Amino acid sequence: MTAPTPSQADRFSFGLWTVGWQGRDPFGEATRPALDVVEAVERLAALGAWGLTFHDDDLFGFGPDAGTRDKQVTRLREALDATGMTVPMITTNLFTHPVFKDGGFTSNDRSVRRFALRKVLRNVELAAELGARTFVLWGGREGSEYDSAKDVAAALDRYREAMDLLCGFVLDRGHDIRFALEPKPNEPRGDILLPTVGHALAFIEKLAHPELVGVNPEVGHEQMAGLNYVHGIAQALWAGKLFHLDLNGQRGIKYDQDLVFGHGDLLNAFALVDLLEHGGPGGGPAYDGPRHFDYKPSRTESYTGVWDSAAANMRAYLLLKERAAAFRADPEVQEALATAGVPELSTPTLAPGEGYAELLADRSSFEDFDAEAAGRRGYGFVRLHQLAVEHLMGAR
Amino acid sequence: MTAPTPSQADRFSFGLWTVGWQGRDPFGEATRPALDVVEAVERLAALGAWGLTFHDDDLFGFGPDAGTRDKQVTRLREALDATGMTVPMITTNLFTHPVFKDGGFTSNDRSVRRFALRKVLRNVELAAELGARTFVLWGGREGSEYDSAKDVAAALDRYREAMDLLCGFVLDRGHDIRFALEPKPNEPRGDILLPTVGHALAFIEKLAHPELVGVNPEVGHEQMAGLNYVHGIAQALWAGKLFHLDLNGQRGIKYDQDLVFGHGDLLNAFALVDLLEHGGPGGGPAYDGPRHFDYKPSRTESYTGVWDSAAANMRAYLLLKERAAAFRADPEVQEALATAGVPELSTPTLAPGEGYAELLADRSSFEDFDAEAAGRRGYGFVRLHQLAVEHLMGAR
Amino acid sequence: MTAPTPSQADRFSFGLWTVGWQGRDPFGEATRPALDVVEAVERLAALGAWGLTFHDDDLFGFGPDAGTRDKQVTRLREALDATGMTVPMITTNLFTHPVFKDGGFTSNDRSVRRFALRKVLRNVELAAELGARTFVLWGGREGSEYDSAKDVAAALDRYREAMDLLCGFVLDRGHDIRFALEPKPNEPRGDILLPTVGHALAFIEKLAHPELVGVNPEVGHEQMAGLNYVHGIAQALWAGKLFHLDLNGQRGIKYDQDLVFGHGDLLNAFALVDLLEHGGPGGGPAYDGPRHFDYKPSRTESYTGVWDSAAANMRAYLLLKERAAAFRADPEVQEALATAGVPELSTPTLAPGEGYAELLADRSSFEDFDAEAAGRRGYGFVRLHQLAVEHLMGAR
Amino acid sequence: MTAPTPSQADRFSFGLWTVGWQGRDPFGEATRPALDVVEAVERLAALGAWGLTFHDDDLFGFGPDAGTRDKQVTRLREALDATGMTVPMITTNLFTHPVFKDGGFTSNDRSVRRFALRKVLRNVELAAELGARTFVLWGGREGSEYDSAKDVAAALDRYREAMDLLCGFVLDRGHDIRFALEPKPNEPRGDILLPTVGHALAFIEKLAHPELVGVNPEVGHEQMAGLNYVHGIAQALWAGKLFHLDLNGQRGIKYDQDLVFGHGDLLNAFALVDLLEHGGPGGGPAYDGPRHFDYKPSRTESYTGVWDSAAANMRAYLLLKERAAAFRADPEVQEALATAGVPELSTPTLAPGEGYAELLADRSSFEDFDAEAAGRRGYGFVRLHQLAVEHLMGAR
Repeated sequence: MTAPTPSQADRFSFGLWTVGWQGRDPFGEATRPALDVVEAVERLAALGAWGLTFHDDDLFGFGPDAGTRDKQVTRLREALDATGMTVPMITTNLFTHPVFKDGGFTSNDRSVRRFALRKVLRNVELAAELGARTFVLWGGREGSEYDSAKDVAAALDRYREAMDLLCGFVLDRGHDIRFALEPKPNEPRGDILLPTVGHALAFIEKLAHPELVGVNPEVGHEQMAGLNYVHGIAQALWAGKLFHLDLNGQRGIKYDQDLVFGHGDLLNAFALVDLLEHGGPGGGPAYDGPRHFDYKPSRTESYTGVWDSAAANMRAYLLLKERAAAFRADPEVQEALATAGVPELSTPTLAPGEGYAELLADRSSFEDFDAEAAGRRGYGFVRLHQLAVEHLMGAR
Repeated sequence: MTAPTPSQADRFSFGLWTVGWQGRDPFGEATRPALDVVEAVERLAALGAWGLTFHDDDLFGFGPDAGTRDKQVTRLREALDATGMTVPMITTNLFTHPVFKDGGFTSNDRSVRRFALRKVLRNVELAAELGARTFVLWGGREGSEYDSAKDVAAALDRYREAMDLLCGFVLDRGHDIRFALEPKPNEPRGDILLPTVGHALAFIEKLAHPELVGVNPEVGHEQMAGLNYVHGIAQALWAGKLFHLDLNGQRGIKYDQDLVFGHGDLLNAFALVDLLEHGGPGGGPAYDGPRHFDYKPSRTESYTGVWDSAAANMRAYLLLKERAAAFRADPEVQEALATAGVPELSTPTLAPGEGYAELLADRSSFEDFDAEAAGRRGYGFVRLHQLAVEHLMGAR
Repeated sequence: MTAPTPSQADRFSFGLWTVGWQGRDPFGEATRPALDVVEAVERLAALGAWGLTFHDDDLFGFGPDAGTRDKQVTRLREALDATGMTVPMITTNLFTHPVFKDGGFTSNDRSVRRFALRKVLRNVELAAELGARTFVLWGGREGSEYDSAKDVAAALDRYREAMDLLCGFVLDRGHDIRFALEPKPNEPRGDILLPTVGHALAFIEKLAHPELVGVNPEVGHEQMAGLNYVHGIAQALWAGKLFHLDLNGQRGIKYDQDLVFGHGDLLNAFALVDLLEHGGPGGGPAYDGPRHFDYKPSRTESYTGVWDSAAANMRAYLLLKERAAAFRADPEVQEALATAGVPELSTPTLAPGEGYAELLADRSSFEDFDAEAAGRRGYGFVRLHQLAVEHLMGAR
Repeated sequence: MTAPTPSQADRFSFGLWTVGWQGRDPFGEATRPALDVVEAVERLAALGAWGLTFHDDDLFGFGPDAGTRDKQVTRLREALDATGMTVPMITTNLFTHPVFKDGGFTSNDRSVRRFALRKVLRNVELAAELGARTFVLWGGREGSEYDSAKDVAAALDRYREAMDLLCGFVLDRGHDIRFALEPKPNEPRGDILLPTVGHALAFIEKLAHPELVGVNPEVGHEQMAGLNYVHGIAQALWAGKLFHLDLNGQRGIKYDQDLVFGHGDLLNAFALVDLLEHGGPGGGPAYDGPRHFDYKPSRTESYTGVWDSAAANMRAYLLLKERAAAFRADPEVQEALATAGVPELSTPTLAPGEGYAELLADRSSFEDFDAEAAGRRGYGFVRLHQLAVEHLMGAR
């Protein structure tokens, strides 16, 4: 059996900071030299990737002079042209420099908040120039370690103020750009604001232009809170807010591991690819954006390992896609889904035209309902899951 | 130093299922006999509590005959009248009986969903009769263990359908009742829908009558996802959705412990009481609803321990309230808050009348901004937190 | 591709309390009727299992009269004879009855400790009668919720006293029985003594007869502490203490899920089966005891689902065994292991005859060692893991 | 009420890497300039500290030339002499440099293992020169991310080989030094070997000179596995292996926070200080080593905050010590302990001279034991804990 080969049609994208991560961690120095953006584009293109994404600082550093900045943008453009690669998304670094140590949009220091807005506005312009349609915002420093040190309500006010300004800006300028907030529960802050997909979705509803703002959920970030990533993605899709996503791997509740996609919770990854590719079991909305990898090649790897790991992300995705297609096509799976009542959940609870009055009048729903008998129904969920496991393992 | 004594003015309420928990757990049988509702009301009143809350099944069991039901409601009313106790909130049990093993509003079985709606509608009427203003819904069985077994988007559709029906019902009947959704990440299901305050707030925005629905966050439930409860409460307050809350204690990410309030993360409990009583540091919105305890007296306790533990919840709250008041009043704390820039976060990032154009034109915000200097600012957060610890310990 | 079929040669065993679990959980009543032991034996035998294990209370309840006890033991024996099934392990329930609410061997109540010892001694005799070679002790109630409420050092003294008495008993009686302690970090107690494999191994070294006592690690229990189960098993094997084990599935740090084996962290399950079947990469000691499943059929299942789930455990194990064999046999895997230096770790760090003096004299080890060059070595761990993922998925 | 003032009699020590941490984290650059060792000694002495500890690299970097090394050691000695400070413990950095990216003693690369041994031997000599009695080993890089990439049994063999060599070395040289292993479950590796106090204690029993090796448990490290630090400390004391310890704060299962002592789980810190200062409730062995702080001043702080945070550790400890003394002295606490049966656990389960034969003959222990009555005993644990909470809060 041969693994499938990625192509640009698969729309796989990678952050420049992923293959470019040099291996510096809280307890260790860099183990790899810096990676030039042109090499990154060429290597990724050769492996079958379609897009490159980046933070401003990844490309030209913090506070570059105009010449450095222009030169790096030009070099990137030329590499893109030469390879057919795209820049579907860009983002701004509001976390590495000491100035952001208490946050960007929600720093207790107003001058920092203003500076952060300017840094982002500048990068939104670059996104527009490069044709990026999605602008991601990971507020990794927006948070606190100590409860008295951050007025959360005021912080959410400032967060909203920032988002409203950004939305107004792209509307006025006519940029075809949408924003995607990336939640994370903690690290590097003790508690980060908008810690999960749910908190971000709720926040978005309070903005002046909610239609311009969605979420960019990362596999590992939700799993760091012990949450089911597929459930989070499903709620984001249900809300029409899955604008982008970050695929990687995480092994439980601990520091942010950023492993290769599939190298963490493989069963959940299988369910994820199934949902992204096919939508709900009844054919609900599926995701049509980039398949973006936000991972870190382990610090133990040389550049050989970096490129092997980049390829591994795409192979894992494509293998899971094959397995999910076979799962969906298996008549025994369809039968097991029906036994489990999975499609039945798409039938409204109320009949057409029914309201509470009719429901109250329906004795079969309550007075004559045999709760004991209904309680004995066997849903067959375990058998269904075993079928999923066996499909994942290529054993059916 | 003597601990403060609770009175009805403090508006402390307890679930009947809390003091009435008999100690049955996944690995053990009940260690205490059943508690009669009249004794519960009398004992709690004697301890200084103000309210009793309950699930339908707590009071008269699942599927009672009319006589049993009426008798129990009458006995409750008489006990309330005799003691001056109130019923500020009631809720419906959609989790104990086998019929709900795959959920109530989102069971894969449509007949179960209809039955669940009827059970809740019936209890909403009881809530109205008893003058309860809040109706809590904990969907503890709404979820799954296996990703293929639940169509999450369809489940959210059914959840919304149920909430829309309930809201329409209370509007039509003219009941002065609001609903409060109680999030929980897992247990008894592997993954529960609307797992955190954030997910519930986001869901509410998609309802037909969002103004009628808020959240009922429980300390331990948020902490089971490793989230900061105070941050969750602050976001709920910010959204105008803190309709009710469940106070208790939890020691980290594990099974749901339901310890006495203050017996888990005491520092977070201190910050919580500070927020509930005083609002944000700048005096933002504070919570004015019941102080409701949803805890379980440990299985090792006899009824002596049950009543001691009920009293302990209230004492802990009142002691924390005293400590928080002293913390706020301490000039050194006020100075440390100012040094930390906490009040500064309430100042909008933009000046009055300023938009992005003016911001872009302000060279001091970017071109002339000294990021290095701003990065050297010491916020003094650790000193501020040490002041909080010392106030909590009564050492200042 | 067809899944392999289990047979008695595979030595799969199940707890009577697993298929017999009726679905009672902290928030719900039983969803299935009781299962008779004879049916359990017959059904499991028909599915290809080899052994049944049980707690005393599973078979004849707490405090049975002599007639009930004898009758149930006789019925079990007859069913074993009829099916060729065995009882490789038995254990004693020191957790369900209220008397054990503060523990058995380490209860603060001395009379309870004496009763617990008597209950276990009685069941050890039954184990000997039935030919069980392993006696498991899960001290699920040995622990505390509150730090002041348990003198941990005294508790460990009492635990040791109990184990020493039990070991002396089987030695004197000449029983061919070894004990296996089963660690768990929490649930049903807030903190359980001997919370991990490590703590139990350390405790065993302090006993009068450490050679008679080993561990019985459960997949989910270690994972509830975020620990790598395969690492724990490897350390237990290294110490010569893997006397028995409990296979099941868990999805991260939360309540004890007891899912089917393979339905939790599938990648770790793959590495586990690889280790159990083949030992270390260099062929270290492998496990030769029963493959014992300690899981719970989900509460949503009828008895159809119970037997499907029992079969699923065995199928998952056998599929993983096939995948692990192919992984080991793959030349590319062997090459990747060599590149990664995995076999190199079996070479002692010191040369034969070398001590610290010779090491200090070897300039190549330090003075002339090129740490920078050694720091550039690429270990290729990610590629190796991707090969494991692809073998697990049946994609190679 | 005034907080107590630390003095050298309290034997508080700090790692040079704690106050010297510059604030570099996985997502951010340093926020503070480097700290000179002489200033560290002088400042800490002025605050009332007694000892300084350090890694080799902290003092003179990785691979210093002889002149640099000697000069730094001399400067340290002079500062110690000038201030009366001591160096009670030192340790070796086997984790920062890329050469250790797969570990030191258990790297898959044998040349790295040899280099690591040399680096440690060299630092053991320095420890002896400086009069340090404890040599800590934190094997933070000894571990793996991928199960196939590390032969755990072989790794434990190599770990033992290293420890045996080190013990032989100090014995031969006549150094008065003991080793202390510091467990950690993960970060920076996905899974670290010897992840908890229990695993380290078990490993030590397999060494050639177990009497020379103990543990150095860190508050946050155990809590990162959801374990009760006080329980781990108690088991280490019970085994006679608490050679040293690392005090700090952690807020649950997440990345390693290294907060100030008392700024995490304050109730557990209270129980810890009570145990360290007074031993078990019956007066068991207490800890008589240094009170060592291994924390990081938050990245948001300038050096003002660094010194404030150093002082906060000591103040928190001393305040907790005062509270614990009052707790012990309170007659109501003593009465509650007796009711809870806490001292009763020190009474052996067997009577003097009693063995299993006598126990089996004692009908009161089983045949005539009223388990139902014993099951009704109320232990009063919640009241006891509430007394602890109120003492902690200075409310009694």
